[in-house]
Amino acid sequence: MKKGIISDDFRKKLHVIIYEADTPAGRFFDLALLFVIIISIVAVMLESVTSIRLLHGKELAIAEWIITILFTLEYIARIVALKKPLNYIFSFYGIIDLLSTLPKYIDVLFPGLGFLISIRALRLLRVFRILKLSQFVGASNQLLMALKKSRVKIAVFLFTVVILCIILGTLMFIIEGPESGFSNIPVSIYWTIVTLTTVGFGDITPVTPLGQFVSVIIMIMGYGIIAVPTGLVTAQFMQERNENSNTQVCPNCNSDHHKDGANYCYNCGHHLHH
Amino acid sequence: MKKGIISDDFRKKLHVIIYEADTPAGRFFDLALLFVIIISIVAVMLESVTSIRLLHGKELAIAEWIITILFTLEYIARIVALKKPLNYIFSFYGIIDLLSTLPKYIDVLFPGLGFLISIRALRLLRVFRILKLSQFVGASNQLLMALKKSRVKIAVFLFTVVILCIILGTLMFIIEGPESGFSNIPVSIYWTIVTLTTVGFGDITPVTPLGQFVSVIIMIMGYGIIAVPTGLVTAQFMQERNENSNTQVCPNCNSDHHKDGANYCYNCGHHLHH
Amino acid sequence: MKKGIISDDFRKKLHVIIYEADTPAGRFFDLALLFVIIISIVAVMLESVTSIRLLHGKELAIAEWIITILFTLEYIARIVALKKPLNYIFSFYGIIDLLSTLPKYIDVLFPGLGFLISIRALRLLRVFRILKLSQFVGASNQLLMALKKSRVKIAVFLFTVVILCIILGTLMFIIEGPESGFSNIPVSIYWTIVTLTTVGFGDITPVTPLGQFVSVIIMIMGYGIIAVPTGLVTAQFMQERNENSNTQVCPNCNSDHHKDGANYCYNCGHHLHH
Amino acid sequence: MKKGIISDDFRKKLHVIIYEADTPAGRFFDLALLFVIIISIVAVMLESVTSIRLLHGKELAIAEWIITILFTLEYIARIVALKKPLNYIFSFYGIIDLLSTLPKYIDVLFPGLGFLISIRALRLLRVFRILKLSQFVGASNQLLMALKKSRVKIAVFLFTVVILCIILGTLMFIIEGPESGFSNIPVSIYWTIVTLTTVGFGDITPVTPLGQFVSVIIMIMGYGIIAVPTGLVTAQFMQERNENSNTQVCPNCNSDHHKDGANYCYNCGHHLHH
Repeated sequence: MKKGIISDDFRKKLHVIIYEADTPAGRFFDLALLFVIIISIVAVMLESVTSIRLLHGKELAIAEWIITILFTLEYIARIVALKKPLNYIFSFYGIIDLLSTLPKYIDVLFPGLGFLISIRALRLLRVFRILKLSQFVGASNQLLMALKKSRVKIAVFLFTVVILCIILGTLMFIIEGPESGFSNIPVSIYWTIVTLTTVGFGDITPVTPLGQFVSVIIMIMGYGIIAVPTGLVTAQFMQERNENSNTQVCPNCNSDHHKDGANYCYNCGHHLHH
Repeated sequence: MKKGIISDDFRKKLHVIIYEADTPAGRFFDLALLFVIIISIVAVMLESVTSIRLLHGKELAIAEWIITILFTLEYIARIVALKKPLNYIFSFYGIIDLLSTLPKYIDVLFPGLGFLISIRALRLLRVFRILKLSQFVGASNQLLMALKKSRVKIAVFLFTVVILCIILGTLMFIIEGPESGFSNIPVSIYWTIVTLTTVGFGDITPVTPLGQFVSVIIMIMGYGIIAVPTGLVTAQFMQERNENSNTQVCPNCNSDHHKDGANYCYNCGHHLHH
Repeated sequence: MKKGIISDDFRKKLHVIIYEADTPAGRFFDLALLFVIIISIVAVMLESVTSIRLLHGKELAIAEWIITILFTLEYIARIVALKKPLNYIFSFYGIIDLLSTLPKYIDVLFPGLGFLISIRALRLLRVFRILKLSQFVGASNQLLMALKKSRVKIAVFLFTVVILCIILGTLMFIIEGPESGFSNIPVSIYWTIVTLTTVGFGDITPVTPLGQFVSVIIMIMGYGIIAVPTGLVTAQFMQERNENSNTQVCPNCNSDHHKDGANYCYNCGHHLHH
Repeated sequence: MKKGIISDDFRKKLHVIIYEADTPAGRFFDLALLFVIIISIVAVMLESVTSIRLLHGKELAIAEWIITILFTLEYIARIVALKKPLNYIFSFYGIIDLLSTLPKYIDVLFPGLGFLISIRALRLLRVFRILKLSQFVGASNQLLMALKKSRVKIAVFLFTVVILCIILGTLMFIIEGPESGFSNIPVSIYWTIVTLTTVGFGDITPVTPLGQFVSVIIMIMGYGIIAVPTGLVTAQFMQERNENSNTQVCPNCNSDHHKDGANYCYNCGHHLHH
């Protein structure tokens, strides 16, 4: 059962440390990884600030090399720990792991591609993997479930909003004219979305009375139709809650929806066995 | 049963292709139309961008002519496929179809009306017609139903908000005075709506302490009263859900939407078997 | 039973016309009044626009005099139509009616108080009185009822938000310092409310990293805690709906919560008498 | 039972006045304190406005000294009134009370630390203590309870939003480049949060088409995902309401929160009489 130079035993141990979170070694590995990821993200951020880069560029470069080497070792370990590593390599996290490691090497080999260095921020996505050890999974699964069940309606809603924004954006372009901030239709659509979502940067604003009137209608629409996704998600959350609440059925009278932790049936007084 | 030069047989075939979505030919026609509409909208947008128009004006003009001719053929086919085409011609989609086709011809005949060319963006509305082939109809009908049932309350709410904005806008005009950005009452009302809906462009801002105080009240009102439409729509969505959840149908009188756990039909008193 | 020069009979007729909305005369009076109010508001708005005032100042002045005389006659008629007019004179609408009429006279007698002229916009509040003839009353009563029942919780919420804004505003003043846009504490509090309510004018923005960090916290708080009033009002709306739904009780088995328009009890099949 | 120079009797009387709100003396003390706190906050605010400080600096300084002395006396009285004052001194309100009093003394002793003077705004937090005498406690407890029960889900939501903002902020920095307003990653993340929460200051705005496209996605996300906290809190509020609506108490085991229409106690099976 041996494969190359790596013994099955070693691979198993590595697998426990890297992929499992319930053992002390696995938990320690996850926490250490979380720590390195956060350090690495902070380093990426600080490096982008000109004044800090000028003062502490050397330290940041060293930190980046240490982090890159750690991530490289981890990436190799993840592949080694699996019998069939291809699934991992082409999985979502496999690609994220590679993108977290490569930029520094690319930066050395092809200095012209330096702008790619910021892709390292994708390392942050790896934090979600570590969360498997937390109690967060239950809560986030419930959230995702509720969002998934509303997804067709939310898609219809977003689709309608986008078409509306294209039509209204074109209208604003016709009204305000290409000499104003509404210089072309794509920019007008951008402005319409900025306004409808109530963000309102103010970099472009209508100046004609008619344009201001149409803006007002867009704003009131945006203010009102936010009720639709909110209502959908709320209704879904409440249904989830009801469905998950208590699935016990009274063996005597068949009534359901008992209170959590109830000992006796609310309808016939029969004892409920847990 | 013949009428002019078009045989009934040909008209029927055309009708199946154009107006029905369940046959292969009908589905292909709808998808092709969707494709042309999207291409045409993208062309309208690109044409409005000065730099693109200068570089690729010729190609865009050719594309526009091809699209216009296709839409013209489609419009003629839609009329020919119907025995009584007047209903179509004066329907909502009939007018949209005409407005999608005409602007280019008008542009050639009366070059002075060139600004009308952007009306072509209305072509996008035709996308909604094609959606009849999708599963979206069910979801959007439910959304529309919930919104319709809340419409009186939403109208009362919007009416009150608009009156409030007129009064508060006038108040801001009195406070800030015509020398500030609040140069007249319509502009002040525009600003009030911008603020109440939490858009906040910042093109006009209060500078007097009293004006800022009134602004703060407007903002907090806007932040709070958004709860009203949201609450209305949410409550309506949840009611819809409850009413639609029971799928039992009375075997006697065929009525549906029974209460969960009902033993007898609410309409005819017939016993419902579970 | 006579009182002065006005006969009881005349007063009764006047009362029917002015204060009642169910007779043809009363309905006509209300619609005419609504029309005059809207015309008068539009005139006030147009007058505030400098370019329009310069062009059509004369016509607007004449319109204003006609409207003022009509409102004066109406005010006198309202007093004459009542036996005890003092209740009306000191009521909310009585004061609004007076404030709708006086400004023009004051403007003539004391030209220095010209800025008061815009108080005429309060005329718009009179629109709410006319709404008594509409179906809107039911819907708006339901809205007001739901808001009233949540008012203690909404007050607690707003009070907490205001205190939070004062503390955070002072904090921003300390961080950004008096040389920035945050020139004093009241302005900083104003900015905090602008930010927390997600309005975000952008007339004042933080420039220090620490200030931007605190801003981010304020924004996320504002984005999140809007859930509180929304949740309160929604929960209240849904309770209203449940309570108002159907109060019939089956005379046979005593079960309630029947569907609206049900003929038979869902539980025992007994006939429900309407 | 004496302790130092303060008699037990005096301490008890003081305790009733300062710490209790049900006696006339206690209520008067609370109202007087509320009044002083509000005056002191207004004074702090006015002092920060340059024009007012120049005109009325003397009066404000005197007011500040009077307030500081009153607060000092109150702080001493609070300590004296307790047998074991250490709990108070290191409690939340004990520290707030000290921070409300110290700044003026520090300002005199170490004039260089003058910027600390604004810490006095923390005095406002003391208002929450006085609210113990109001009916607000019930309402605010319900609000806090509902928020607490949703806290894991809200934390998951906020955590996801923050990670999303970091990734999208970095993306915007890569797209718009360091020469634009997006001068470094922290600033880009700040801008992303400003946009996602729909605040939209407009101090930094995207100028490249790609940047505007990504902005649009951020805005629509922000507009949509606000449904999540709102839905969570609403669902929680409604559950609270349902659980609290039934006020029946089991005559046998005293348990409450029975289901509406329950015939038997869920806890002990005892029959509930309606």
